[in-house]
Amino acid sequence: MLKEAIHHRPKGNFAYAYKEETLHIRLKTKKKDAKNVNLIYGDPYDWKKKKWTYKKKPMTVAASDDLFDYWFIELDVPTRRLRYGFEIGDGNDTLIYTEKGFYSQIERDDISYYFCFPFINPIDIFKVPEWVKETVWYQIFPDRFANGNKKNDPEKVLPWASEAPALNNFFGGDFEGIIKNLDYLTDLGINGIYLTPIFKAYSNHKYDTIDYMEIDPQFGDKETFKKLVDACHQRGIRVMLDAVFNHSGLYFGPFQDVLKNQEKSKYKDWFHLHEFPVKDVYPPNYDTFGYVESMPKLNTENPEVRSYFLDVAAYWIEEFDIDGWRLDVANEVDHSFWKAFRKRVKSIKPDLYILGEIWHDALPWLEGDQFDAVMNYPLTLAGLDYIAKEKIDTIQFANQLSKSYASYTENSNEAAFNLLGSHDTPRVLTECDEDIKKVRLLYTLLFSFPGTPCVYYGDEIGMTGGEDPECRKCMVWDEEDQNTVLKNFVKQFIHLRLTEEAFTKGKLSIIEPDKENDCFHFVRTFKDTTVHFFLNVSNHQKKVSLDCDSADHAFDLWNQKELKTKEKKLNVELPANDFVIIKQSNSSK
Amino acid sequence: MLKEAIHHRPKGNFAYAYKEETLHIRLKTKKKDAKNVNLIYGDPYDWKKKKWTYKKKPMTVAASDDLFDYWFIELDVPTRRLRYGFEIGDGNDTLIYTEKGFYSQIERDDISYYFCFPFINPIDIFKVPEWVKETVWYQIFPDRFANGNKKNDPEKVLPWASEAPALNNFFGGDFEGIIKNLDYLTDLGINGIYLTPIFKAYSNHKYDTIDYMEIDPQFGDKETFKKLVDACHQRGIRVMLDAVFNHSGLYFGPFQDVLKNQEKSKYKDWFHLHEFPVKDVYPPNYDTFGYVESMPKLNTENPEVRSYFLDVAAYWIEEFDIDGWRLDVANEVDHSFWKAFRKRVKSIKPDLYILGEIWHDALPWLEGDQFDAVMNYPLTLAGLDYIAKEKIDTIQFANQLSKSYASYTENSNEAAFNLLGSHDTPRVLTECDEDIKKVRLLYTLLFSFPGTPCVYYGDEIGMTGGEDPECRKCMVWDEEDQNTVLKNFVKQFIHLRLTEEAFTKGKLSIIEPDKENDCFHFVRTFKDTTVHFFLNVSNHQKKVSLDCDSADHAFDLWNQKELKTKEKKLNVELPANDFVIIKQSNSSK
Repeated sequence: MLKEAIHHRPKGNFAYAYKEETLHIRLKTKKKDAKNVNLIYGDPYDWKKKKWTYKKKPMTVAASDDLFDYWFIELDVPTRRLRYGFEIGDGNDTLIYTEKGFYSQIERDDISYYFCFPFINPIDIFKVPEWVKETVWYQIFPDRFANGNKKNDPEKVLPWASEAPALNNFFGGDFEGIIKNLDYLTDLGINGIYLTPIFKAYSNHKYDTIDYMEIDPQFGDKETFKKLVDACHQRGIRVMLDAVFNHSGLYFGPFQDVLKNQEKSKYKDWFHLHEFPVKDVYPPNYDTFGYVESMPKLNTENPEVRSYFLDVAAYWIEEFDIDGWRLDVANEVDHSFWKAFRKRVKSIKPDLYILGEIWHDALPWLEGDQFDAVMNYPLTLAGLDYIAKEKIDTIQFANQLSKSYASYTENSNEAAFNLLGSHDTPRVLTECDEDIKKVRLLYTLLFSFPGTPCVYYGDEIGMTGGEDPECRKCMVWDEEDQNTVLKNFVKQFIHLRLTEEAFTKGKLSIIEPDKENDCFHFVRTFKDTTVHFFLNVSNHQKKVSLDCDSADHAFDLWNQKELKTKEKKLNVELPANDFVIIKQSNSSK
Repeated sequence: MLKEAIHHRPKGNFAYAYKEETLHIRLKTKKKDAKNVNLIYGDPYDWKKKKWTYKKKPMTVAASDDLFDYWFIELDVPTRRLRYGFEIGDGNDTLIYTEKGFYSQIERDDISYYFCFPFINPIDIFKVPEWVKETVWYQIFPDRFANGNKKNDPEKVLPWASEAPALNNFFGGDFEGIIKNLDYLTDLGINGIYLTPIFKAYSNHKYDTIDYMEIDPQFGDKETFKKLVDACHQRGIRVMLDAVFNHSGLYFGPFQDVLKNQEKSKYKDWFHLHEFPVKDVYPPNYDTFGYVESMPKLNTENPEVRSYFLDVAAYWIEEFDIDGWRLDVANEVDHSFWKAFRKRVKSIKPDLYILGEIWHDALPWLEGDQFDAVMNYPLTLAGLDYIAKEKIDTIQFANQLSKSYASYTENSNEAAFNLLGSHDTPRVLTECDEDIKKVRLLYTLLFSFPGTPCVYYGDEIGMTGGEDPECRKCMVWDEEDQNTVLKNFVKQFIHLRLTEEAFTKGKLSIIEPDKENDCFHFVRTFKDTTVHFFLNVSNHQKKVSLDCDSADHAFDLWNQKELKTKEKKLNVELPANDFVIIKQSNSSK
């Protein structure tokens, strides 16, 4: 066996507490190298006659990518302490793998070299809000969703959809527009809205904040916002806001004070200034987001700044009862701030959802003391590469998803924020070259995967648009201009997700494709129900086949029809660019 | 090249901020597989003509173990943001390794797949106290070091050294005994003392606390303790205490209250009780350290308990100005507590040393938000296996040290608490079967390695003793019964360590042995000085050889004599079981 490929290191994503007496343990081995792996484990203090008392349990391959198999076990640990190693066999040889390396025999006289999970302390367990996985989000870019009140329109407002979206134009969308269209969202099945920034800011996207304690007047006032949140809550819709704490806008009071008073400004330590005089020209002589001079980076290490932004975070929860914070450019802000942030917001509302914007590997933020989840762009990009752009084949796609899934804890995977696009990316229909069949397949992925799916406003009715600002067009409200077939598809899928428990609570298995032109096949299992998803990302019909016990009940969930098995086999014809969802229940289990 | 062996994941020990504008980056490859590795890197926002601006710098192999080479680079990152990948070559092929896998070319149009170190935020940098590496500790087990005041002797005190140490006997050592012998410690060169627990407790080892706010009367009172700390500080000696916060003793007030009042006790949530009535018999029906009923585990998640112990930690710093806390059974206490602990104690005394007792891999506690270091038992055990027990050869020893060293950050390695034994292990002379030559080699390792070395009381004069309680004999004060040759050896080595900067500040390189019977060779480099250490762990004389530039100045540091080079070579005869330390300075560099 290839020793160099075998890897485990406690904590992180390899050994973590899933619940108070439950550990998850993973092991990486070279793909197809090990045939069986047993966990050797016991309480470190459990000895009889000077020999350590250990047990053995088999692990299973939960995921595979191009190079590795990821073995997994969920283990009950009633005494909450564990020493453990791995017995890895390839059919011929057996290796005992421990913290100190490889051995040929299981040691019982000295357990110092085994791996150690010293104690499951409940307070350290990564807890994500239960409601998140049962939520379907709708992302709203407020200026472009609906104009419900002409009186609060910004000065240079343009007639709705009269022009293409540009970096500097405004269309007057506001809170009342959202309130008036809550029926639309409820009808679609949405039970969460995520609003890009709503605080007073300069631009149309509002990522350049002027005042974190005020609503931007073009959207309404605090009273209207309260009305919006209350109306949402009455309908069972959660509300998430966007926290832009990495940088402020140029017109943020403290930065203006710096520009005016320079060295004498009491806010000079609120930013990262390189020299005086500070000048708001390019290239900036202060740290910024990227090199954008209108977005000075905030010094969140400064206790005053920290306290101010923790108060901001608290204020909108305490006064308006919001349900989530999405954190902009989250990975450039210090960890120390986010740890304090989590403590503060969870102390006010323990089931508040904390969602970080991180496009890269985000494990250092997802260990239970900072965020609940990150925006799952790796899923977005893999999905688009596979289905929309056909840049990768089924094997590569399965590998990418598996690798990404195995690199986090289950706790976090269950709260992953899944999306097909956002205000920062081209719209999904445009990415698919306007091929609705591809969009349907992407939605199948979105609504069937573990996590919490989000629809970007207007995607559900077939709106198009390339890179920002094109992806920020005004919402199309005239039903004649909406793709109602797509809308109904989305609606039906959301309904299915929220009624079939396996979609929200089922454990995921990605079935390894054995040739590049296979269907992409994954499974969600919950209690005695198994749901199989097959995506045919090709231009020709395929056959899919499942083993079925005679006791099994097989049902086509999308078309809501019974499926006939023949000789304990279920065979289904799957048209080109289509999918099938098969539910198997075995009540005898 | 073997892709399965190639590994990097940002943060942890693979990519971390060493200083405010300095990153350390490591890469693991199969041993001897890659011939050269370049870091490809740049600011993510630095683009020209729609192409990313990157640079390339070669990495070097900083350590190797049996399976892997660990490549390393120290990189200046003035804008504090980094995207990076690795260009790995084996002489024939070149691989580009990124977060998303392997590629054949360096991509400049899309950098989303590179690794990301988003921002160096100073507050997140792992800062350890500067003084620690320049400290040589002396561990004192107070009951057994010196009896300076007969009046505070415990009831059943035995005449000094009149019996073998047992689980339940007392010899009357106390603070005044330490104060009276500070000259002895100063003469030895000691500038730090670590005291095992001094708080009121039941046993002779005091790990079963009765009152965390009181000095055990057998050691003295608060006034005497203050006198001890002040006397130490006057001599430039730091003082570290032992914090036993995982469990209390049976006679701890709150636990006694539980035993008395059971369900009605206001302290019932201070512990982890399984049922009522709670009974202090074996097996305990409450969580304990191991299964020891006299050591009930504390519920450090309970805000009252947390607050109590944080106050304890603060009290002894604020009132007595102690310099360090050693944390007993540190890995079974929740991370959340230790994060709060670090914040609290560092807010009082920013350069307080926080040392965790963890025998296993301790990275999850050594990322900058909990401990400064752990007790480096992996070094102890490897050293004993190699030198004392001859269980492993030079190659295995070098591999073990290299692997352990590469598994932590440099920040933490520089503060590692190195020891040859403690109150929890047999004494070093006993481990060496009383072979002084072996002990000398072990001290060479101890005093020459990065970190902060600790001498267990009496080891320096050749005291013996097996497993606890044998290793806790009374200190031998009669010079006639002391091994003064060994004592002078230790004294001379401490002096050398504290006068030659490379011993405390030099970067470590472990030179890979090319055959099992090689000398063990490692190097410390500081500015233009390189110090080579050769250990001959064998029963026959060996030759060691070094390349020497004619401009080099070569000096035998132990014997304080010039060494003659011949044809740019330095050749030294190294006797059996002996060592040589060669200093090369190149002032022309």
